[in-house]
Amino acid sequence: METSIGLPELISATEQEILRLVSDEKSSTAGLYEMCRYHMGLDGSGSSGKRIRPLLGLLAYMSITGDYHKALPGAAAVELGHNFSLVHDDIEDGDRERRHRPTLWAVHGIPQAINAGDALFTLSRKALHRLTDLGFSDTKVLRLFRLHDDTCLALCEGQYIDIWASERSEPMSVDLYFEMIGKKTAALIAASVEAGAVLATDDEQLIDRYRAFGWALGIAFQLNDDLLGIWGDQAATGKAPSDVARHKKTLPLMHAYEHATPAQRARLQAIWDTPEPTDAEVAEAVALLEALGSRDFTRDHARRYRDEALDHLASTGIVDAEALESLRGIIVGVIKA
Amino acid sequence: METSIGLPELISATEQEILRLVSDEKSSTAGLYEMCRYHMGLDGSGSSGKRIRPLLGLLAYMSITGDYHKALPGAAAVELGHNFSLVHDDIEDGDRERRHRPTLWAVHGIPQAINAGDALFTLSRKALHRLTDLGFSDTKVLRLFRLHDDTCLALCEGQYIDIWASERSEPMSVDLYFEMIGKKTAALIAASVEAGAVLATDDEQLIDRYRAFGWALGIAFQLNDDLLGIWGDQAATGKAPSDVARHKKTLPLMHAYEHATPAQRARLQAIWDTPEPTDAEVAEAVALLEALGSRDFTRDHARRYRDEALDHLASTGIVDAEALESLRGIIVGVIKA
Repeated sequence: METSIGLPELISATEQEILRLVSDEKSSTAGLYEMCRYHMGLDGSGSSGKRIRPLLGLLAYMSITGDYHKALPGAAAVELGHNFSLVHDDIEDGDRERRHRPTLWAVHGIPQAINAGDALFTLSRKALHRLTDLGFSDTKVLRLFRLHDDTCLALCEGQYIDIWASERSEPMSVDLYFEMIGKKTAALIAASVEAGAVLATDDEQLIDRYRAFGWALGIAFQLNDDLLGIWGDQAATGKAPSDVARHKKTLPLMHAYEHATPAQRARLQAIWDTPEPTDAEVAEAVALLEALGSRDFTRDHARRYRDEALDHLASTGIVDAEALESLRGIIVGVIKA
Repeated sequence: METSIGLPELISATEQEILRLVSDEKSSTAGLYEMCRYHMGLDGSGSSGKRIRPLLGLLAYMSITGDYHKALPGAAAVELGHNFSLVHDDIEDGDRERRHRPTLWAVHGIPQAINAGDALFTLSRKALHRLTDLGFSDTKVLRLFRLHDDTCLALCEGQYIDIWASERSEPMSVDLYFEMIGKKTAALIAASVEAGAVLATDDEQLIDRYRAFGWALGIAFQLNDDLLGIWGDQAATGKAPSDVARHKKTLPLMHAYEHATPAQRARLQAIWDTPEPTDAEVAEAVALLEALGSRDFTRDHARRYRDEALDHLASTGIVDAEALESLRGIIVGVIKA
């Protein structure tokens, strides 16, 4: 990193911006804000996630204007919105652990966790209202609210498809999978970048390019995760359970399922449904995916979307070279496909 | 009702406004919007609730302007927001039935119901964006968003206190109970009325009076419910389980608890905690509440807030006599204390 404003500074400023919203105001409701801080890793436990979404928004804004401060409310909104969805997802998926700590519902029970998620959702919008104090026009702030609300609806639609699919035994189609990750993952990453651009400029063509960059990056992120879940170092060496053992149905399986013989399909489904598959069974499933070209298919798409993201980024004709370098660094650093 | 625009017309127009937001757009997500329509009683089942909140908003707007159409997005937002909170409350409280039908989670499971609640929450904001299409200024629309978001945060804080209290054996204090119902009930009713006034006028003093009217009415509504839950015809005759048998801790119990001897307190707590109290036990608890003055205390407060609401309403110097009559009718019709 050669930039004069480093990523740790951006993360720290985002966290300060969020902390003003999740501080206790009264003893009667202090516990609610304590839950919010715990989930977001703002309680000093150091378990906070990578803050990729706010970073992307701040860097997009910086790349056009040279500074980041006025974009902080947008960054806070994006991170709060992301975390609201994680709190509810953890309940919906029955996950008891996230970032090596018990999830919020595992500590406080489902009723309080649902409600704390709702509070985080509300706070993501409260964050945006500070844009008015910073001098942005009502028209611009309202545009951010429209972007926020459209994005949240996409998240809910994507999550609906995900839950629906998890309750069926057959994997969903490749087409539906792309629709789902577009709504669940790419929409929020695209919105993070778009928000930064909208706050920085009135140039609609430029805003479109930033959004397209964020969208492609979001899809690439997800496909990269799908690959690492089966062929990443951790999964391949058995250090962490692979997505096969975790019964996670991601793109490689969808692709394989569409290209398999009926017998292969039945075998794949049987292994994915096995409560605790043996190493041999996992290896058999992985070999089958490879034989059906599903690894190559997923990797090719991850690379294609990553390259598309880089192309869109280049097309912005970005002003600030340091911010550009940071954005390229995030893309290349995160996507190993 | 002597008004030329009747309440059924207002309810029907509100439902049409909501239906544009919860219609299927794609087959992949149709099930999500179907859940929203089911919960809101917009699926032709006729099980829809009284729509009191949107009615109050539309009548407030009408009372100043003489018409209601331009306030419909606000009415839809309020009703969608109210219903989001009901979907999540039903999960949090473990209630399997509402309005004589299975609750959403009882039909579709907790994961889909949490997510459908999030969608309704998002749609409540999507509703407000149509105000821009109707010609309201960005400043005014943004003000409605601020009101919306502040109200939602109050709802979450109130719900936090409610869940926290439900997990303790002792009832909360009378003071905390008033704080809770202010946030859980009065905030949204006050906001409904305020939204109608904000859309109709720039007169801040007038807006304040409408808000004060809504707030007092909201508290009166809740205390009226508390009374009916123990002394209403249904509860008193055993036709419906009384709040004692439902283990609901409302103002009469809080008051009694603060004025009881240690022995009386223990007895009240024991009866409220009994899984299925006998009729004799319920009658004993009710007699104890009456002896401690808790019925009078609750009724006096319900009446005081109702009268306060009527006074605030009179202070508005409302223009439209028919709308005024409808508003008075709602107050007097609903609050029987």
